[in-house]
Amino acid sequence: GAGDDKAPIIAIQTALDAIKEAGVPLKHHLKFILDGEEEAGSPHIGYILEKYRDRLKADVLFMCDGPAYFSGDPTLIYGGRGIISISLTVYGPNVSLHSGHYGNWAPNPAFRLAQLLAGMKDKNGKVVIKGFYDTMVPLSPLEKEALQTIPPFDEELNALYGFTGVESGEIPLMEAILYPSLNVNGLESGGVGKQARTIIPAAAAASIDIRLAKGNDPEEMVQKVIHHIEEQGYRVVTSEPDRETRLKYPFIAKVTTEEKGYRAARTPMDLPISKRAIAALRDYSDREPVSIPSLGGSLPFNIFEDVLKIPFIGIPIANYDNNQHQENENLRLGHLWRAIETFAAILMM
Amino acid sequence: GAGDDKAPIIAIQTALDAIKEAGVPLKHHLKFILDGEEEAGSPHIGYILEKYRDRLKADVLFMCDGPAYFSGDPTLIYGGRGIISISLTVYGPNVSLHSGHYGNWAPNPAFRLAQLLAGMKDKNGKVVIKGFYDTMVPLSPLEKEALQTIPPFDEELNALYGFTGVESGEIPLMEAILYPSLNVNGLESGGVGKQARTIIPAAAAASIDIRLAKGNDPEEMVQKVIHHIEEQGYRVVTSEPDRETRLKYPFIAKVTTEEKGYRAARTPMDLPISKRAIAALRDYSDREPVSIPSLGGSLPFNIFEDVLKIPFIGIPIANYDNNQHQENENLRLGHLWRAIETFAAILMM
Repeated sequence: GAGDDKAPIIAIQTALDAIKEAGVPLKHHLKFILDGEEEAGSPHIGYILEKYRDRLKADVLFMCDGPAYFSGDPTLIYGGRGIISISLTVYGPNVSLHSGHYGNWAPNPAFRLAQLLAGMKDKNGKVVIKGFYDTMVPLSPLEKEALQTIPPFDEELNALYGFTGVESGEIPLMEAILYPSLNVNGLESGGVGKQARTIIPAAAAASIDIRLAKGNDPEEMVQKVIHHIEEQGYRVVTSEPDRETRLKYPFIAKVTTEEKGYRAARTPMDLPISKRAIAALRDYSDREPVSIPSLGGSLPFNIFEDVLKIPFIGIPIANYDNNQHQENENLRLGHLWRAIETFAAILMM
Repeated sequence: GAGDDKAPIIAIQTALDAIKEAGVPLKHHLKFILDGEEEAGSPHIGYILEKYRDRLKADVLFMCDGPAYFSGDPTLIYGGRGIISISLTVYGPNVSLHSGHYGNWAPNPAFRLAQLLAGMKDKNGKVVIKGFYDTMVPLSPLEKEALQTIPPFDEELNALYGFTGVESGEIPLMEAILYPSLNVNGLESGGVGKQARTIIPAAAAASIDIRLAKGNDPEEMVQKVIHHIEEQGYRVVTSEPDRETRLKYPFIAKVTTEEKGYRAARTPMDLPISKRAIAALRDYSDREPVSIPSLGGSLPFNIFEDVLKIPFIGIPIANYDNNQHQENENLRLGHLWRAIETFAAILMM
């Protein structure tokens, strides 16, 4: 992709060329890690980091993936949310039944799934699953301050994506993404539109992703969801229920997780290295850098944190509307020029 | 299909042959209507009935479609529910969004659809849409009495279809199907299982069928659902919302109906012709006939009622487990022999 992730590689190389040409001596040793498998979940990065742990010792890791803040200002990102995904299936009759002969009587899993999901959040988008927000590390004073200084972009995004009113109510985007989220990303039961049939479906499924805040353990968050479902009277199983289970429990839900998920990671904004990076960006430009406590998205920052035990800071440079992973992925030239300057400032800091 | 609907045609012909062979004179004129398009919604039957209205004058219409009561006893059915189907779509952003970048903030249509559907019924399966039960004609004393005498089959069905506990709580199947129902027969949003992606879907859709009780007008029932959705703060539209609508209303739902649906029909059980039919079945057999006030399913009885203005009674004879419309559709031979006797008794009554 032009923006994700050729842009930062080219920009860093160009910045290094320019520094060399200008005869500026570098103050630090530089080490580069290029992971060509990040979009596939970085299956080997942990192994590589372990193997070359000694050669990769450093004071800080800069990660250059992803888009800069919407405003296009130089951007520093101190963390990312973790993630764990859940598949939830609710059962009705063992075959789909005629909705005339049995409607109003046989249990309808599509309706039950709706009830179950609806009961997970209140009207203000707050998750009501017990303890959902308990293990989250509170925002530091510096993080709260950073939230105040990020130029708001919510209205522009409302207009761009064609909606008014958000799930988080009064809480702006950049704060909302610091909390753990519960997102229904898929629903399936029977058919709709031309595929609709007048049946009581045999099952209904939802796909849910939970974005994790710093402090949340993936497996523990899944357990909280399971506990919530059990409290609604469901027998929770991890594979297709057999006949005995079906005849014993009136409410049955299958809950599975495909991948193990990973934790959130967040570098404190008051580390000396964090302050130096902000100062470097401020020096080179008349645009105030934007400091973002955490991406809403998930990057395996925690692998670097766990293995190399060094702080990381994200310096994304692509335009936010680069159509990442889609058709017509693009890179605005202004963003590329600014990226070269940004990386030069960081490399010389 | 063996059971639906060759069985009654063959059984009636055989009964007529037997009556003729035994030299029993018929007391009535017989007229037969064979509709080969019933499974396709009987698109031409209305036209045919109108055209031959005079030639089709009669005292009663017997309809021989569908399965006999579960117990296999001779069955008389006095009506069927009507039906109207609804497509409901709820909107989020105009494109699906990354659940990390925007989760917790951008409106999630899958979650909203769950909330909307969950709010349509209470925990006991009762529809809480205002006026949903208001226009239903109450059961007559004879219909209530019939419900008491139908041999219960609920437990056998629970075991057959592998569930325990029903949506209607204490209300048995044969009573539950006399009320209007609201059935979610399909859900679709994003993807689940291997198709799941960590997105906030752009839309979420449900397919709903409403089975109508005697007295319910299809269009009026749809209006009640629409009114309920509006009361939850939604702007209800009938086509894809344009940009202006999206930016004006925080909650948008599209509600459409593909077909016009039709009303329920029910022949009073105390008409002289009804009593004669029951007596005829009682006479020929030592098995007490089962009188069912209404099928849960929908048959276009109302067309016959409206055009010919004669009462109708259903005399279904196939076994209930005939796999109607599916693989291995079948007919139990005992049911075929009993069907011949049943029709002979009716033809000679």
